[in-house]
Amino acid sequence: MTADWSQFEIGRDEIGVAAVRIAGHVRETPVLRLEADALGVPAILKLDLLQPTGSFKVRGAFSLLLAAPIPGGGVTAASGGNFGAAVAYAAGRLGVAATIFVPASSPREKIDALAALGAEVRVIDGYYPAALAACREWAAERDVLFAHAYDQREVVAGQGTCGRELAAQAPEVDTVLVAVGGGGLIGGIASWYRDDARIVSVETEGTPTLHAALAAGEPVDVEIGGIAASSLGASRVGDHPWAAARRWVDRAVLVSDEALTAARRRLWQTARLAVEPGAAAPVAALLSGAYGPEPGERVAVVVCGANADPRDLIAPAR
Amino acid sequence: MTADWSQFEIGRDEIGVAAVRIAGHVRETPVLRLEADALGVPAILKLDLLQPTGSFKVRGAFSLLLAAPIPGGGVTAASGGNFGAAVAYAAGRLGVAATIFVPASSPREKIDALAALGAEVRVIDGYYPAALAACREWAAERDVLFAHAYDQREVVAGQGTCGRELAAQAPEVDTVLVAVGGGGLIGGIASWYRDDARIVSVETEGTPTLHAALAAGEPVDVEIGGIAASSLGASRVGDHPWAAARRWVDRAVLVSDEALTAARRRLWQTARLAVEPGAAAPVAALLSGAYGPEPGERVAVVVCGANADPRDLIAPAR
Repeated sequence: MTADWSQFEIGRDEIGVAAVRIAGHVRETPVLRLEADALGVPAILKLDLLQPTGSFKVRGAFSLLLAAPIPGGGVTAASGGNFGAAVAYAAGRLGVAATIFVPASSPREKIDALAALGAEVRVIDGYYPAALAACREWAAERDVLFAHAYDQREVVAGQGTCGRELAAQAPEVDTVLVAVGGGGLIGGIASWYRDDARIVSVETEGTPTLHAALAAGEPVDVEIGGIAASSLGASRVGDHPWAAARRWVDRAVLVSDEALTAARRRLWQTARLAVEPGAAAPVAALLSGAYGPEPGERVAVVVCGANADPRDLIAPAR
Repeated sequence: MTADWSQFEIGRDEIGVAAVRIAGHVRETPVLRLEADALGVPAILKLDLLQPTGSFKVRGAFSLLLAAPIPGGGVTAASGGNFGAAVAYAAGRLGVAATIFVPASSPREKIDALAALGAEVRVIDGYYPAALAACREWAAERDVLFAHAYDQREVVAGQGTCGRELAAQAPEVDTVLVAVGGGGLIGGIASWYRDDARIVSVETEGTPTLHAALAAGEPVDVEIGGIAASSLGASRVGDHPWAAARRWVDRAVLVSDEALTAARRRLWQTARLAVEPGAAAPVAALLSGAYGPEPGERVAVVVCGANADPRDLIAPAR
């Protein structure tokens, strides 16, 4: 059976409507134009790490929560990471109850941060799939909105507003490099740009979700590992992201964990940006040569998250 | 004798010319508009901490080095901090020799960073005044350009380009809050804005250089101390900055060291900006109420430096 992926495609109109919904709730993050010395080639950084909760995820969270009336039980999500923080933050700002399921493997400080944002936190034994299953089961029995980190129309349309902003801020861009976990960000950005720019996905060798899907011609499960596992480590690209990526992602590149670490340090050294490992992937692609722009090619890099311990930015290289 | 301060005033034309000189060498840093939740009032952040070497000082350094042919012996400056790094960086990019005098009290990593930028570093026993005296004496005997951190026309005009950019990026601004050390940044910014915005200086109680000058009606020497001493701790405001500040600084406020620490943590928590203590002073003024905007007043804050150890951003409050 050949799947009809077009039903999962997100239109520019949906992204435009999401932008109107979330205006005033999230930030229009600025771009920073870097000279060639900084990263080896001139680059335009889209600084979405400056969003509330330190990642782009608030775009999708507000987009979802503002799309329709919230059930009486509030919203629930499974995430010990950036999406959980974004849902907790958005729910708190909107006066909606949030119940966040996190795996027991999550660091204590992330759990505390969710509680500080006002969410009810449920810690589930095991790893992420166990938390997700518990969340779905809990949601099925209640009048609540289940929020998926990267595979709902409203969420992906919300992430697409990042691309919409970038296109307005830097209309000269030829190529956009985006890190991929489950694909929500690149799915949204590719759905905005379509054929107006070359879209390049960047993943680590340990989290090659989209790379593997493009090679197989359809979403496939991958084993995940390495230092980006907690931020980019979805085991399979979402259906909505895939519907966009299969049409508009021009190239999928992989980088090593070492390249990620070097990219984080370079971003700190050259622009005092404290990014998380996964969010450094596109810069790692430029620095390592995994993606080598043509002369004159104008490259934008989405810097999408900053939720890592800043203490290891200046530690000696391992 | 009443000094004729007008001879030290910097014109908008000089700032415009400086902007042309330094274009392509420094970055046009972006602004970030924060919702009221972030800092208690809506605020526009001018992110000059994203400059090469992590502070606004590269504006003045390039402005000076590109203003006239450099003598055969290159450039020299006394600074173990941001200005030294900026001069070393600019000289390195322009292929000019740089000799930087630093006090032996400077941290080893700052000295190493200057050397890594290609500067010849001379470590002088004692504190900053000893390094400055040694630098001046050395310069007097040689064919070199002496660079002053905050009291040369070209340097102050260069810092003024930060205000010129901000005025173009956020024309709606009513009030600009600026941290003050020797006054180069606020002198340049006030020289651009003049009466077009309310200019508010922010210093710590331990480094009240401009506050004391405005109270006395002329530059006076002050005792310095506290956690901002190394970044804001000039003992006397410069003549060029004073010429602008006496006319166009509308208010001088002071904040405590504790407010500075709280402001650094808030900037990290709300926007993942890793600022140095002195650069957090304007945000500290907003958070502490030392400066309380009127309803509807549109406030901009210059976030001017990030050269502190990011490891203490998440340490528990002392």
